[in-house]
Amino acid sequence: MQPGYNSISSVDEKMMARTLAYANAALDKGSVGIAALLSRRDEILDLEHNQFQETRDAIDHAEMVVLRRMARYLSQLSEEEKRELTLYSSLEPCLMCMAAISFAGLKRVVFSAYNADGTDEVTVARGLTSEQVNQALTRGPLTLLGGVQREEGREILARMGKLRASVPAD
Amino acid sequence: MQPGYNSISSVDEKMMARTLAYANAALDKGSVGIAALLSRRDEILDLEHNQFQETRDAIDHAEMVVLRRMARYLSQLSEEEKRELTLYSSLEPCLMCMAAISFAGLKRVVFSAYNADGTDEVTVARGLTSEQVNQALTRGPLTLLGGVQREEGREILARMGKLRASVPAD
Repeated sequence: MQPGYNSISSVDEKMMARTLAYANAALDKGSVGIAALLSRRDEILDLEHNQFQETRDAIDHAEMVVLRRMARYLSQLSEEEKRELTLYSSLEPCLMCMAAISFAGLKRVVFSAYNADGTDEVTVARGLTSEQVNQALTRGPLTLLGGVQREEGREILARMGKLRASVPAD
Repeated sequence: MQPGYNSISSVDEKMMARTLAYANAALDKGSVGIAALLSRRDEILDLEHNQFQETRDAIDHAEMVVLRRMARYLSQLSEEEKRELTLYSSLEPCLMCMAAISFAGLKRVVFSAYNADGTDEVTVARGLTSEQVNQALTRGPLTLLGGVQREEGREILARMGKLRASVPAD
């Protein structure tokens, strides 16, 4: 296990800045401003944004596109090697992506804005948090580290018109 | 809304028989024996089995492959037209697929075997049922009709060596 596995390192900060920059760039060109990056130690394996504008496929979330593209690579890694991977997302992964990340054998996820930062449009489920899903995962729980550069993540939601005015009290 | 929307019709029985036959055929050729079929009224739009053996992609569940392949078609349907669709699965959809089905705008799902019929290997989450996920879906709940030709679905799980010896009491 790497140092800093359960905490945020300078590599994480760099990877998240890259992820958020990519989400902003996607927005600039009229695409959905949600991005995901897959790294192994300090190497970027893949980086993509939500492809809905391009494919009209509602399940083409950034995380799903990256997992699909890297599937063959991932299938060849040992459990130990998979511990060197981190998936970064500009927004807390939804229910679907959480389950997909688990199926793919990833162990560590770092995200910026929380789902609760966004309007209902960005959430797939009410009253069922990623943390609850994470605790229920048969092959989990994943190491889930949220709120990294959260303000920048929230700004992207605001640019998309999807920032919740106030985080609900419950 | 069609007649029989909340109950099982003869068309459903026919579609499920077709889905289960396809799952068995996939098993016969050494693939994963889980299949999904998408219909619009009494027309089959797509039919596929879990593609893990072919692609080594752990998220290539039968439902996901069908949703992805039909994404452009689905994106052109109105909400009313989407009510003419049914997704059939030989096995109760997992967390990931439930969320994906909801994102894709489908409203009605019919499945054969329950996740609880299978070993832990076929479930992505413990203590979190499809019904609970369904109730939480922001764009849900879906009409979820399970246990159709369940014995045939259980037999396929048995062929895969994934039938749970007994359904847990809890």
